[in-house]
Amino acid sequence: MIKILLIHGPNLNMLGKREPEVYGTLSLDDVNARMRQIAEETGTELRVFQSNSEGALIDAIQEAAGWADGIVINPGAYSHYSHAIRDALASIRLPAVEVHLSNIYAREQFRNHSVISAVVVACIAGFGWRSYACGLRSLIEILRERNPE
Amino acid sequence: MIKILLIHGPNLNMLGKREPEVYGTLSLDDVNARMRQIAEETGTELRVFQSNSEGALIDAIQEAAGWADGIVINPGAYSHYSHAIRDALASIRLPAVEVHLSNIYAREQFRNHSVISAVVVACIAGFGWRSYACGLRSLIEILRERNPE
Amino acid sequence: MIKILLIHGPNLNMLGKREPEVYGTLSLDDVNARMRQIAEETGTELRVFQSNSEGALIDAIQEAAGWADGIVINPGAYSHYSHAIRDALASIRLPAVEVHLSNIYAREQFRNHSVISAVVVACIAGFGWRSYACGLRSLIEILRERNPE
Amino acid sequence: MIKILLIHGPNLNMLGKREPEVYGTLSLDDVNARMRQIAEETGTELRVFQSNSEGALIDAIQEAAGWADGIVINPGAYSHYSHAIRDALASIRLPAVEVHLSNIYAREQFRNHSVISAVVVACIAGFGWRSYACGLRSLIEILRERNPE
Amino acid sequence: MIKILLIHGPNLNMLGKREPEVYGTLSLDDVNARMRQIAEETGTELRVFQSNSEGALIDAIQEAAGWADGIVINPGAYSHYSHAIRDALASIRLPAVEVHLSNIYAREQFRNHSVISAVVVACIAGFGWRSYACGLRSLIEILRERNPE
Amino acid sequence: MIKILLIHGPNLNMLGKREPEVYGTLSLDDVNARMRQIAEETGTELRVFQSNSEGALIDAIQEAAGWADGIVINPGAYSHYSHAIRDALASIRLPAVEVHLSNIYAREQFRNHSVISAVVVACIAGFGWRSYACGLRSLIEILRERNPE
Amino acid sequence: MIKILLIHGPNLNMLGKREPEVYGTLSLDDVNARMRQIAEETGTELRVFQSNSEGALIDAIQEAAGWADGIVINPGAYSHYSHAIRDALASIRLPAVEVHLSNIYAREQFRNHSVISAVVVACIAGFGWRSYACGLRSLIEILRERNPE
Amino acid sequence: MIKILLIHGPNLNMLGKREPEVYGTLSLDDVNARMRQIAEETGTELRVFQSNSEGALIDAIQEAAGWADGIVINPGAYSHYSHAIRDALASIRLPAVEVHLSNIYAREQFRNHSVISAVVVACIAGFGWRSYACGLRSLIEILRERNPE
Amino acid sequence: MIKILLIHGPNLNMLGKREPEVYGTLSLDDVNARMRQIAEETGTELRVFQSNSEGALIDAIQEAAGWADGIVINPGAYSHYSHAIRDALASIRLPAVEVHLSNIYAREQFRNHSVISAVVVACIAGFGWRSYACGLRSLIEILRERNPE
Amino acid sequence: MIKILLIHGPNLNMLGKREPEVYGTLSLDDVNARMRQIAEETGTELRVFQSNSEGALIDAIQEAAGWADGIVINPGAYSHYSHAIRDALASIRLPAVEVHLSNIYAREQFRNHSVISAVVVACIAGFGWRSYACGLRSLIEILRERNPE
Amino acid sequence: MIKILLIHGPNLNMLGKREPEVYGTLSLDDVNARMRQIAEETGTELRVFQSNSEGALIDAIQEAAGWADGIVINPGAYSHYSHAIRDALASIRLPAVEVHLSNIYAREQFRNHSVISAVVVACIAGFGWRSYACGLRSLIEILRERNPE
Amino acid sequence: MIKILLIHGPNLNMLGKREPEVYGTLSLDDVNARMRQIAEETGTELRVFQSNSEGALIDAIQEAAGWADGIVINPGAYSHYSHAIRDALASIRLPAVEVHLSNIYAREQFRNHSVISAVVVACIAGFGWRSYACGLRSLIEILRERNPE
Repeated sequence: MIKILLIHGPNLNMLGKREPEVYGTLSLDDVNARMRQIAEETGTELRVFQSNSEGALIDAIQEAAGWADGIVINPGAYSHYSHAIRDALASIRLPAVEVHLSNIYAREQFRNHSVISAVVVACIAGFGWRSYACGLRSLIEILRERNPE
Repeated sequence: MIKILLIHGPNLNMLGKREPEVYGTLSLDDVNARMRQIAEETGTELRVFQSNSEGALIDAIQEAAGWADGIVINPGAYSHYSHAIRDALASIRLPAVEVHLSNIYAREQFRNHSVISAVVVACIAGFGWRSYACGLRSLIEILRERNPE
Repeated sequence: MIKILLIHGPNLNMLGKREPEVYGTLSLDDVNARMRQIAEETGTELRVFQSNSEGALIDAIQEAAGWADGIVINPGAYSHYSHAIRDALASIRLPAVEVHLSNIYAREQFRNHSVISAVVVACIAGFGWRSYACGLRSLIEILRERNPE
Repeated sequence: MIKILLIHGPNLNMLGKREPEVYGTLSLDDVNARMRQIAEETGTELRVFQSNSEGALIDAIQEAAGWADGIVINPGAYSHYSHAIRDALASIRLPAVEVHLSNIYAREQFRNHSVISAVVVACIAGFGWRSYACGLRSLIEILRERNPE
Repeated sequence: MIKILLIHGPNLNMLGKREPEVYGTLSLDDVNARMRQIAEETGTELRVFQSNSEGALIDAIQEAAGWADGIVINPGAYSHYSHAIRDALASIRLPAVEVHLSNIYAREQFRNHSVISAVVVACIAGFGWRSYACGLRSLIEILRERNPE
Repeated sequence: MIKILLIHGPNLNMLGKREPEVYGTLSLDDVNARMRQIAEETGTELRVFQSNSEGALIDAIQEAAGWADGIVINPGAYSHYSHAIRDALASIRLPAVEVHLSNIYAREQFRNHSVISAVVVACIAGFGWRSYACGLRSLIEILRERNPE
Repeated sequence: MIKILLIHGPNLNMLGKREPEVYGTLSLDDVNARMRQIAEETGTELRVFQSNSEGALIDAIQEAAGWADGIVINPGAYSHYSHAIRDALASIRLPAVEVHLSNIYAREQFRNHSVISAVVVACIAGFGWRSYACGLRSLIEILRERNPE
Repeated sequence: MIKILLIHGPNLNMLGKREPEVYGTLSLDDVNARMRQIAEETGTELRVFQSNSEGALIDAIQEAAGWADGIVINPGAYSHYSHAIRDALASIRLPAVEVHLSNIYAREQFRNHSVISAVVVACIAGFGWRSYACGLRSLIEILRERNPE
Repeated sequence: MIKILLIHGPNLNMLGKREPEVYGTLSLDDVNARMRQIAEETGTELRVFQSNSEGALIDAIQEAAGWADGIVINPGAYSHYSHAIRDALASIRLPAVEVHLSNIYAREQFRNHSVISAVVVACIAGFGWRSYACGLRSLIEILRERNPE
Repeated sequence: MIKILLIHGPNLNMLGKREPEVYGTLSLDDVNARMRQIAEETGTELRVFQSNSEGALIDAIQEAAGWADGIVINPGAYSHYSHAIRDALASIRLPAVEVHLSNIYAREQFRNHSVISAVVVACIAGFGWRSYACGLRSLIEILRERNPE
Repeated sequence: MIKILLIHGPNLNMLGKREPEVYGTLSLDDVNARMRQIAEETGTELRVFQSNSEGALIDAIQEAAGWADGIVINPGAYSHYSHAIRDALASIRLPAVEVHLSNIYAREQFRNHSVISAVVVACIAGFGWRSYACGLRSLIEILRERNPE
Repeated sequence: MIKILLIHGPNLNMLGKREPEVYGTLSLDDVNARMRQIAEETGTELRVFQSNSEGALIDAIQEAAGWADGIVINPGAYSHYSHAIRDALASIRLPAVEVHLSNIYAREQFRNHSVISAVVVACIAGFGWRSYACGLRSLIEILRERNPE
C-alpha cells in the first residue's frame, strides 16, 4: 500500500474564509475530504498535516522519511524563501510534488519564484483544489510505476 | 461535446529521440495516443498541432478561437521569450493550460521563467507525459463545471 | 468597544536590554504599559502578544480575525522577508498598522524594505515607543470613523 | 510617387476582436482602409502586409528594399525581443516609423522597451489607429522634404 | 472651442542654437509659429509656456486644469526623473500627449525611459517639429471625438 | 515656545481636488487648519509653506535653521529623487519628520523608496491627514523631552 | 565522406548589400562558393541552407540529424534570444560550430551574449568570411579525428 | 569555567542520514560527542541545542545571554535569510562563531551568502565536523584571552 | 580678457555652517574671495552665481553662452540626477569644469556617480576650496592655450 | 612527513604596521613563527611565501604541485577578483584552505565575496592569526586521514 | 616577412598537466611546436611568450609594437578582468586575435565575458589547440591581404 | 622638505605614442619634467615610479611609507579593479591624490568607477598633464598646511 503525506503550509487553514476571489470557496476540510476520496479509490494511505510554523513543517517532512513513499506539499508563502524547507525535502529523498491553488506565476512578482521547486519532482499551480488532485493522482501513478507489485 | 486543441511547440517532434534522460523515451505519437485515449474516455474532441515555427503556433492559437473550448499547450523553449505567443493566448480568451515534460523550475536559470504562464489558467511541469494528462483532464473538468449540460 | 491586538515580533522581548543606542532604554513591559494607558483613556480593549516564532505570530494574527477590530504590529526582522506574515495579515482583512521603534529607512540596506508594508493601512518608523502610540491612537480614530456609534 | 510599405506584426489580424478595451473596436481592415485613404489623398502608393511569423516579416522588410521609399511598422509583441527584425530594418536603410496602438510605456514592464526603436526614425504609441495615421503622414512629409520634386 | 496648453521643458528655449545635428535648426519660435498655424486651422485656442524650472512647469500644468481641454508637453530632460511633473499631470486628469524632437529611444540609455509616459495618452518621438504637429493634431481630434459639438 | 515649520511639497496644493480615491477629500487648507489647532492646543508656533519648486523648498528649509526647532515635511514626489532636499535637511540639523498621506510602500515601485528618509528622525505614511497629526504631535513631544522647561 | 550542413540565419541573404562597413562586401553566394571549395578540397559533402525564419532553421537542424556529421551555423540575430534553436542543436547531438562575420563581442551590448554558444563545440567571431572557413576546416578535422578511416 | 552554547539549526538532526556525499557520514550525536570531548579537555561547560524552528533558535540564543560566554552556531539554511536570528545574535552581544559542515561558498549561489556572518566574530566552512572543532577551540582561546584567570 | 562663470549649486550657500567635518569651515564668501583673487592675479573676469533652484542654475548656464569663455560648476546634489543641468551644459558648448569640495567617490553610494561629469572637460573632488582653485586655474590655462593672444 | 605551503598575498607583509584595529598587532613574522611551531609539533614541513604580485603567487602555487601535500593561503585583496589565482589552485589539485585574518563577511561589500572560495576545501575568516592556526591544523588532520601511515 | 607574437597567459604553462578533461592532453610545448610549423609553412616569424604575471604580459605586448605585425593571445583568466591588458592591446594598435582552448561561453558564468574581446579583431574559443591554429592562419592571411607584396 | 612619490600605472610608459586623441601628445618624460619643475619651484623632493605590474606598484607604495609625505598616483586601468592597490594605499596612511589624464567619467562604462578613489584624499580627471600638476600642487599645499614649518 502506497503511503503519502499531504502537507499544507501557512495560512492554508484559512482556506475558504480567505480571499475567495483568489483561492476559491472550498475550505481546507473540503480539500482534504476530496483527497481522502482519491486515496480511498486508489488504495493509498494518506496522512494530512497543516501548520503555520516553518519548523513544524520541517519536522513533519523529516518524520515522513520514516513511513511515507511520497509527499504532496503546498508550501504557501514559504515557497518563496524557505531554503530550510527545501533542504528538508532534499535530505529525505522522497519524491515530492509541489502544488499551489492559484497560478503563482500570474500574480505578484515575489510569488513567481519558488525556492522549493528545484528539489521536487513536479509542480502544479492554478487549478484550485484540482492542483492537489492532479498532484496526488500523478504521484501515486509514479510510485506504482517505480514499485510495481 | 467539449473541444480542445493540444499544441506542441518547437523540438517536441523530436520527443523520444531527444535527450531521453531529460524528456523520457516516449515519442510524440505515444503522448498524443494517450491524450486521444483520455479524450475518448471523456467524450472530448481533441485536435493536435505541432510546429517549430512561432508564427504557425500563433496562427493555430488564433484559429482555435473559432472552434475550441480550451487549449493545452507545451510552448517548449518559446515559453521563455515569446511574448507574441503570450499575446495570442491572451487575445483569444480561451482557457489554456501550460504543460512541460520536465520540471523547468529545476533546470537552467533561463528555463525557470515562462512569459506565457501569466496568461494561462494553470501550469504543470515535471510529470513527463503525465503533465499533459493532468492538464487535459483538469481542463475538461473545469470546462464542464463552467458549462454544465 | 474597539478591540485591538498589539503584536511584537522577534527579539522585541529583549527591548531595553538590547542595543539601547538603537532601540532606547524602555523595556517591552514599559511600552505595553503605555499602550494599555492609551487603551484605557480611549475605552479600547487591548490584547498584547509577543513571540520569536513566525508560526506563532501567524497563529495570533489569524485568531485576531475572530475578535479584534484592528492590529498594531511590529514585525521586527520578519518585516524584511516573511511573506507568510504578509499573507496572514492580508487574509484576515482587518486594518493593520506597522510600527518600528527605529527609523528602518535610515539603517542597513536590508532593513529599508518591508514586505509587510504593502498590506497594511499605514507605517510608522523612528519615534521609539511613540511609534506604537501614534499607530494605536490613529488606528482607534480610523476605526471609530468607520463605525461611528 | 512615394511608395510605402505598411507592416502589421503578430496578432494584429485579430484587431477589433481582441481585447477591445486595450486596442479599440476597429478591425485591421478598417485601419488599412483609413491608411489607404491617406495614401490616396497624398498621392502615395501603399502596400500592406500582415503576418504572425517573424521570418515572414523579415522577408517583407527585405523585399521592400527593392521598391519602397519608407516603412510604417507595428511590430506587435516582436517589438520587445526581435533583434532579427531590428537587423532587417537596419540593413535595408529605408526610413521606418514604429507605431503602436496602445501606449506601450504605460502597460506591463516587458512592453516598456522596444528593441526596434533604436533603428527607426520615429516612434508613436497610444493614439489607436491615429498612431498609424500620424506615422504615415509624417513619413510622407519627411520623404517629400528629402526628395523634393 | 478646444483649448490646449503647449508646454516646453528645460533647454528647449535654446532650440536651433543647441546641438542642431540632434535637434534640428528650427528655433522654438518657429515651432510655436507652426503650432499656432495648426491651432488656427483647426479653430483651437493654443497657449504656449516654456520654463527651465520644474516647479514652474508644475504650476503651469496645475493652472491648465482651470481652462484647458488637453496638454501637449515636451518635458525635455525632466522626462527621465521628474516624478513631480508626472504627479502634476496625473492629478489634473486632462488628456496629455508627450512629444520629443529626437528619437529618445535611439540615444543614450538614460534617455530611453520617461517616467512621464505612464500617465499620458500617447507618446511621439523622433519627428523633429513634426512630433509636436502630430501630437497637437491628434489630441485635437481625440478631444473632438469625445465632445462632439 | 516650540516653533515648527510645516512643509508641503509639489502637487499638495491640489489636495482634495486631486485623485481623492488615493489622497482623500480634505483640502490642504483643511489639513493646515487641523495642524494649526494642534499647534494651538500644544502652545506651539506653526508656520506653513507649500511650493512646487524644489529650490523654494530648499530655501524654506535653510531659513528654518534661523528660527525653528523642528520640521514636519511631506516632500511629495521629490521624496523619490531629491538628494538636494535631503542635503538641505541634513545640513540644518533640525529634527525633521517625513509624512505621507498615502501608504507609499503599497503603491507603484518608484514610490517605495524615499531618499529623504535616511536623514529624518521618523517617517509616517498612510494615515491621510492623520500622518501629519501624528508627526506634529510626536515631534512636539520629542522636542519637549529634549528641552524641558 | 564527411557530411556537413552550413546554416545561415536571418538577414544573411542580404550579405554584401547590408552594412558593408560591418559585414564586408562579399555576397552570401561568394561565401558559399568559398566554403564549397574547402569542401571539395577536403572531400566533404556540404549542403547550405539560409532562412529568415526561426522555425525553418529549427526544421533544418532537425533534418540534419538524419544525414549530417556536423553543423556550421551563423545564427545571426537569433543568437541572442532563440532558446528554441539552442534546444534544436542540443537535441540532435551533432557537433556544431557557431560562426559570426563580425566580432560580436566588440559591438552593442545585446550582441555580446549568444544563448547558443553553450551547446556548440566552438565559436569564431570577427574574421569575416574567414570565420566560416576556420569553422568548417576545424570541424572537418575534428570529425576526422573522431572517426579515422 | 568558560560556558558555551552549541546551536545546530534546521535539518542538522538528519546528519549522517542526509546527503552523506555533501555532509559526511557522522551523525549529529557523533559531532556532539567530539565537541563534548573538546569541552572536557579544555575545562569548558558545553550545552547543545538543535531545532528546526527559527523561533526556538532565537529563544535559545536569547536565553544564552543569561549564562553563556559565547556561542558556536551552525544556522543551516537559515543562514541565508534569517535576519531574525541575526538580530538575536547581535542583541545579546556574546561572541559567536558561525560554522558550516560544507564549503557553502562552493555550492549553489543562494548558499554563497549568509546574512548572519556580519554579526559574528568568525566563520568556518568546509571542514566537516572539524569546522565545529576549529570554531569551538578558537572561541575558547579567545574567551580565555579576554578574561585571563 | 578671459571671462568665467563660477556656479555654486544647492546648499552651498550654507558652506561653513553646514557639516564642517565634511565640507570644512570656510564660508561661501571666503571661497569666492579666494577665487576672485585668482581671477585678479590671472587677469580674468569672474562672475559668481549661487542658487538652490535647478531652473535658475539652467538659466544661468544658458546666459553664460552669451558672454563667458568657460564655466566652473559645483552642482552639489544635483550632480547625481539633474539630466536637465547636464543638457544645459552640453547645449552651450563652453568648456566646463566640475568641482566638489569633498571626495564624492569616498562617500555614500548615491554620491559616487555624477550625471554631469560626462559633459564636462574635467572633474576635481576632495580638495575642499582648493578643488575650486585647481579647477579655475586649469580652466584659465586651457582657455589661454586655445586662444593665445 | 606532510608538506605544506603557506602563502600570504598582497599587503600581508605590512601586518602589524597596517590598520591594527582591523588586522591586529602581530607582525607577519610572528604569525609565521606560530605556524612554524604548529608544524614542528605535528611533524610537518612548512614553507612560507609572501608576495604582492599576482603572477608570483601563481608561480608559487604551481611550484607547490611538485612537492607539497596541501596549501594554506590568505589571498588578501586578490580574493575578490583574481580568477587567475583561482585557476592556479584548481589546476594543481592539491587541497587548499583559504584563511582571512578579519571577518571579510562583516566588512565592505566588495570583501564579502571571494572568487577563490569555490576551489578550496574550506574557508576561515575572522579569528586573526588563529584563522591560520585553525586552517593549518585542520589541513594536516585531513591529509593524515587521507594518507594514514 | 610577417612577424607575429604568440602570447600565453596565466596557468597555460600547466597545459597537459592541468584539468585535461577541460583543456586536453597536449602540453604548451606541443602547442607551440604546431604553431611554429604553421609559421614555417607560411614563411612567418613567430615569437612565443608565456607568463603568469599581468605586468609581464603588458610589457610583452608593448614591446611587440616595435617589431611585430600582429598578436595571437590567449589571456587565460585575465580575459575576465584585466582592463590593463585590454589597454595595452588597444594602445599598440596591432591587429590581435584572442584564442581560448575551451569554449568559455559554455562554462562558468564568470568565464562568459572577456573584457579583452572588444579590442581584438577576432575571437576563437573551443577548438583546443586548433583555436590557436585557426587564429594564427587567419591573422597571417589578413595581414597579407592588407600588405600585399 | 616635503617628499612626494609620483606613481604611474600600467601603459602610461606609452604616453604620447598611445591614442593621442585621448591622452594627448606629451610623453611620460615630458610629464615628469613638468612635475619636477613644480617640485623644484616648491622645494619638494619628488621621486617617480612607473610599472605595468600591480605587484611592483604595491611594493612602491609600501616603500613610500618609509620616506614620503604623500603620493600622487595615476593607477591607469588598475583603478577599476585593483583592490590590492587600494589596500596598499589604505595601509600606509599617507595622503594620496588620484589623477587621470582623461575624464574617465565621460568614457566607457567600466572606466566610470575607480575602486581606489574611496581611500584617497582627492581625485582629478580630464586635465591631461595638468591633472598631475593640480594634484601635485594641491597635495604640497595640504601637507604644508598640516605641518607648518
